Amino acid sequence: MALINSQFLKVFNDDIQDRIDKKINRFRAIHRDAPLIALDSGDVSLPLSPGVTEAMVKAMAEMTGEATFKGRGPMEGYPFLIDAIVKYNFQTYKVRIDPDEVFINHGTKEDLVGFGDILHRDNRIATIDPVSQDYIAANVISNRAGVLNESGQWSHIIYLECPKENDFMPEFPKLRPDVIYLSYPNNPTGCVMPRQVMEKWVKYAIDNEVLILFDATYKSFVTDPSVPQTIYEIKGAKKVAIEFRSFSKNAGFTGLHCGYTIIPKDITGYSFSADKSANLNALWRKRLGIKNYTPSYIIQRGAETLFSPEGLAWIRENINYYLGNAAILRRALGEAGLKYWGGVNSPYLWVESPYGSSWKMFDKMLEECNILCSPGERFGPRGRGFVRFSSLANQSRVMMAATRIAEMKI
Amino acid sequence: MALINSQFLKVFNDDIQDRIDKKINRFRAIHRDAPLIALDSGDVSLPLSPGVTEAMVKAMAEMTGEATFKGRGPMEGYPFLIDAIVKYNFQTYKVRIDPDEVFINHGTKEDLVGFGDILHRDNRIATIDPVSQDYIAANVISNRAGVLNESGQWSHIIYLECPKENDFMPEFPKLRPDVIYLSYPNNPTGCVMPRQVMEKWVKYAIDNEVLILFDATYKSFVTDPSVPQTIYEIKGAKKVAIEFRSFSKNAGFTGLHCGYTIIPKDITGYSFSADKSANLNALWRKRLGIKNYTPSYIIQRGAETLFSPEGLAWIRENINYYLGNAAILRRALGEAGLKYWGGVNSPYLWVESPYGSSWKMFDKMLEECNILCSPGERFGPRGRGFVRFSSLANQSRVMMAATRIAEMKI
Repeated sequence: MALINSQFLKVFNDDIQDRIDKKINRFRAIHRDAPLIALDSGDVSLPLSPGVTEAMVKAMAEMTGEATFKGRGPMEGYPFLIDAIVKYNFQTYKVRIDPDEVFINHGTKEDLVGFGDILHRDNRIATIDPVSQDYIAANVISNRAGVLNESGQWSHIIYLECPKENDFMPEFPKLRPDVIYLSYPNNPTGCVMPRQVMEKWVKYAIDNEVLILFDATYKSFVTDPSVPQTIYEIKGAKKVAIEFRSFSKNAGFTGLHCGYTIIPKDITGYSFSADKSANLNALWRKRLGIKNYTPSYIIQRGAETLFSPEGLAWIRENINYYLGNAAILRRALGEAGLKYWGGVNSPYLWVESPYGSSWKMFDKMLEECNILCSPGERFGPRGRGFVRFSSLANQSRVMMAATRIAEMKI
Repeated sequence: MALINSQFLKVFNDDIQDRIDKKINRFRAIHRDAPLIALDSGDVSLPLSPGVTEAMVKAMAEMTGEATFKGRGPMEGYPFLIDAIVKYNFQTYKVRIDPDEVFINHGTKEDLVGFGDILHRDNRIATIDPVSQDYIAANVISNRAGVLNESGQWSHIIYLECPKENDFMPEFPKLRPDVIYLSYPNNPTGCVMPRQVMEKWVKYAIDNEVLILFDATYKSFVTDPSVPQTIYEIKGAKKVAIEFRSFSKNAGFTGLHCGYTIIPKDITGYSFSADKSANLNALWRKRLGIKNYTPSYIIQRGAETLFSPEGLAWIRENINYYLGNAAILRRALGEAGLKYWGGVNSPYLWVESPYGSSWKMFDKMLEECNILCSPGERFGPRGRGFVRFSSLANQSRVMMAATRIAEMKI
């Protein structure tokens, strides 16, 4: 019988999802027709821009003509999209990224989770905490996480403490890691990393030869000028940081799947067995050739239009809509006397449970307000005592939810 | 410094591609304007069906309406596509596949290469040979391949001999493997596996508890009724075989990226550390949740139309066109007195070099006929002495090539 990777037998949050599902089912059984407002999802509600679909329809017409048909595209993505990214998302901020440092993908998660492929199993991984459990799971299945201890943490992972008193900014670890996951604007806390904090982390990474995997999925939500638009605004970051970005949240691409990864050519890793260092950009290109596909020509043409004046204006509109939702929720949470973070440069609000337990808060939201939120445990053990609200839902639903929250009795 | 997976430093065929590129560049430098006919690519030339794009345009219109917008889809794929696959590609052949045994993906390679994620590193892998070197590379990077020996084979991989005298059908290995890669219609040999041979292999897999990873990318090219349309036509195959399929070659989806994998729920693997067996279907679902995205709603709607009467007729037309190309090439190769296999139930023709060396044949094709073919070494050391021709090119180009081949002097 084929031997399986036993790491897959370990539990990744399934128990938490089961518990949520059970609670919802129980609620539904009693309140069959109660209109439940889902503020638990990271999925977006605004549709695609007509400009995007227009470009995609045009690209599709090309695909039906024999002379204009496109089969396999370049494995790193089409130059028209890469060039637009370089120009609008980096040159605008006086950051130089070369086209061969950009890799188009199906979204942040694909590459953030897949990045472990080119890293040795023995790297010591650190992550901010709370954090998307996909990063943890990716390291569990590649046997980099050690064993799960009673507190719900993995023995080989360094969890960076992010105290609420400090707006959930991570503290430097006692033990030097090889790789650090950072994610700002953060999911779930909604906090951003100010320039001077980011400078400290880049310096730490340079001084300690640490690789930063920087998840910038939500960077379009940043309106605060003191927060960098890319980690590469920080001097030296191109030596240590890989940045993961996406069109999912700012342009409604959650269902189209298009994002990209920046791997600067300056970053090297070390091979023990060969006793030499190697370029991560080149290794990733090798992996792409073996493992991956890029999104179709059609979708890349759709993404390209996001960099036109209309596209950029439309993204701004989208972001304003969601940040408007966040402002509505902030006001309501304040009126209810709840303590929260985020919702300013981020679509997420991280709310402290006044009862201590996130599950009690989850139950109260469900039963009294008919609102679905995410219990903090979904983002690891340090999420305990918090719940996450998403403002990516439809505005009329968010307003309805806000009214209920503002009127609830804590 | 982060430690890299040193397996990536090993060479995967790069030297062969370099050698091909150098030869082409040299040719181009001398014969600047000679019209080179590329018969080396597995990429298709026929455009998308208007029916496919019509469905995709309709789906795109849904994506711009707030009420009809689709964000993230189900991670296994949309039921409308899964149900069509179950009905038309399996029920038609009296094979029962449940909808939850189908996983929509971005194409065969994604899952065939990614499948190793859920398998233990210590599995002994066997593969037919010659074969797509992506399968080998996938096992090299996950450290399952051992060391590369002088003959170009990896020490831990069992290479199944496929003698030309036996139409490249594989022989049973001396050592029992845990996992076997089979691929029919085969790339590169163009040979198919007749029913009775497939029965022998399924029996071997059941008797020896071996997992078969069956690459059926080219199954639509099968016109011979003695060749099964799916491995699940063979009794017992649902206990041992995973089948990988694609819309790339039969429907022009090489640039859209859509395929699917069948993982029957009966198949289990064994966990050493947990001392128990586990269901591969469930493990794969877990992996999907952590690692992957499915193709967009738009592309899945496009794929769905391939199962309409028009879609099925159109696929038949496509296949006939490419098989027509193959027949043209067969005739020309015969006239030139060359020995070849394939090109009947497959788009590929595998031609024995009359000079012994594939490179000499490659040079002759390039310089005398201005035709680009693939030297057999691209498919592993046992490809030596052969070249591959693809009939997936445009018909007028194929006819031009055929005239040149028929007139060449061996």
